[in-house]
Amino acid sequence: MNPTARVEKIRRTMEEDGLDGLILTQPENIRYFSGSSRGGLALIPVEASPILYVYRLDYQMALDEAVGFRIKYGRNPLKKMLRDMAGMKLRKVGFDQLTLSAYNVLNKALKRVKVVDYNRKVHGLRAVKDEEEISYIREACRIASKGMEAAYETLKPGVRECEVAAAACRAMRMEGSEEDAFPMIVASGVRSAYPHGGCTRRRIGRGELVVVDLGATYMGYRSDMTRTFVAGEASDRQVEVWEAVLEAYSKALENVRDGVPAREVDLTARHVLERRGFGRFFIHSLGHGVGLSVHEHPVLSRYSREKLVKGNVVTCEPAVYIHGFGGVRLENTVLVSDGRAEELTVFPMDLL
Amino acid sequence: MNPTARVEKIRRTMEEDGLDGLILTQPENIRYFSGSSRGGLALIPVEASPILYVYRLDYQMALDEAVGFRIKYGRNPLKKMLRDMAGMKLRKVGFDQLTLSAYNVLNKALKRVKVVDYNRKVHGLRAVKDEEEISYIREACRIASKGMEAAYETLKPGVRECEVAAAACRAMRMEGSEEDAFPMIVASGVRSAYPHGGCTRRRIGRGELVVVDLGATYMGYRSDMTRTFVAGEASDRQVEVWEAVLEAYSKALENVRDGVPAREVDLTARHVLERRGFGRFFIHSLGHGVGLSVHEHPVLSRYSREKLVKGNVVTCEPAVYIHGFGGVRLENTVLVSDGRAEELTVFPMDLL
Repeated sequence: MNPTARVEKIRRTMEEDGLDGLILTQPENIRYFSGSSRGGLALIPVEASPILYVYRLDYQMALDEAVGFRIKYGRNPLKKMLRDMAGMKLRKVGFDQLTLSAYNVLNKALKRVKVVDYNRKVHGLRAVKDEEEISYIREACRIASKGMEAAYETLKPGVRECEVAAAACRAMRMEGSEEDAFPMIVASGVRSAYPHGGCTRRRIGRGELVVVDLGATYMGYRSDMTRTFVAGEASDRQVEVWEAVLEAYSKALENVRDGVPAREVDLTARHVLERRGFGRFFIHSLGHGVGLSVHEHPVLSRYSREKLVKGNVVTCEPAVYIHGFGGVRLENTVLVSDGRAEELTVFPMDLL
Repeated sequence: MNPTARVEKIRRTMEEDGLDGLILTQPENIRYFSGSSRGGLALIPVEASPILYVYRLDYQMALDEAVGFRIKYGRNPLKKMLRDMAGMKLRKVGFDQLTLSAYNVLNKALKRVKVVDYNRKVHGLRAVKDEEEISYIREACRIASKGMEAAYETLKPGVRECEVAAAACRAMRMEGSEEDAFPMIVASGVRSAYPHGGCTRRRIGRGELVVVDLGATYMGYRSDMTRTFVAGEASDRQVEVWEAVLEAYSKALENVRDGVPAREVDLTARHVLERRGFGRFFIHSLGHGVGLSVHEHPVLSRYSREKLVKGNVVTCEPAVYIHGFGGVRLENTVLVSDGRAEELTVFPMDLL
């Protein structure tokens, strides 16, 4: 499905919902519908050509990348868009995200236009990937797997967290990653109990848990994977936690399938960890969609009302975080299908 | 100045402006006032203790990092904050940024509370760095300079853009960079004419211009620097463009000083490029503040009304982008003082 087909698809949804226009402010949404990596603002009227509004410096790149959009530039893209909108006689316009300040400007300029939050519909469309998107995510996942291999090979007692990150980021760049999919995490020792511990100059001690969470980007599409290693010999307690997380991962993954409610998959992992006595240490949801954004729909949470469908790409990442002891998280990016989900990130889950 | 002193300072400003509370949603602002790298939402009442609202998974890290804030967590940090606000009898509350959707929730829960955009005041405070902040930015700049050196040493005809990025990101991570300050740019050949060209698998051709734009992060603080190289022999035209940009950089830098209007510095560079016949190819402003965000205040634009003051950290980055030919950009992060600005990023500006 090319960007133009996506525009047609959202237009049909807009018509059903009585909208005659859609404003996009989020770079990933603009890229999804226009093909342009240079954000700005986009306007998709139901009855007229879609338009991308950028700053002068982004004009040429937007022009070269965008498909099916007119490109306009100016010192104030918002005001430029509002002037165009004034001539279009729009009545009800959706938006993906608007700041209150931008809304106030819009509301003053276009008193009669009603705006409605349409983010959920845009993300609903993005949540189901087409073949081209899957091929990009597959490549981003291949690159991440190489990054994890490099991290594993570098990691040993006495090495700094940032040196492990150096090896991983170099490997991913060499394989063509456009940028880290998100700030890489190499969190060792007690720091491994922070779900988002970042990466410091701390030296990894012998026998410490080390959580490595990384992702690559290809054609704008992301990947996301986590392994937890021990630098040296693992203790009985570390093995016990790791085995619980691994079982939670495996059981949850068996449930990742077209038609299954997202909350059921989360609960499968949660019940394993509860049964093993670690339930209260699993302090986030099981996973999230991955695509142009590293966190998108569907959300694999016990509070989610979404159903998994074929073409979703999601993470499966159960974890246990024990303050003062450390953390274990195991994560792959997986593709939802009719049968067993396909793991797109590939590296052994062993602790050592 | 520690976070607590910053809170006291913004509180005095709030009192002058008749505000009795401030809502922060932007991670950099929350870090600035609380010391916590885990965002969420922050509330700074004038008359009560400031509170940070996070998701469960960020609770422990926020607790360990934050100074002078109470930490609360919940499934919905916004609703948790609104419940607290309801008991505080606030009348007029500032915010740094609010989505329209968050505002609607707030407005429904707290009908009598007036909210006002206070982002400019928050950024005004952040624009002037204290000694501790300058030491962090200095370190981020030292690391970026090492990254540029690695890029330079790797760059030659036949090497891929992403391989140059691999060397640079490895070098910065080895020196302790927490993450790239922004997506690194290695844009070669015709792609160098894109101001934000990203980084691809393209092989660099002999005699091509290559723009390398990178930055590091230390303690959350960023750096930003650009060099333009030629892979092999430079043509007369390339040298002509490069000399114009170099003169624009040097002349503008002489003007970067406490008390000088930001627009004058931009115009100095712009006039050099106009005099040399390249004015219409300089399609962005001269620079921007650098700190916890890579783009912050002051803005060095011809439309800016800000004055430079001692303690500002800004980029100086004149450029020429010629579609079909290529681009040249030269950039350092510099510290504004009474006398000549100090260049914090250091690497020769030579083309070869």
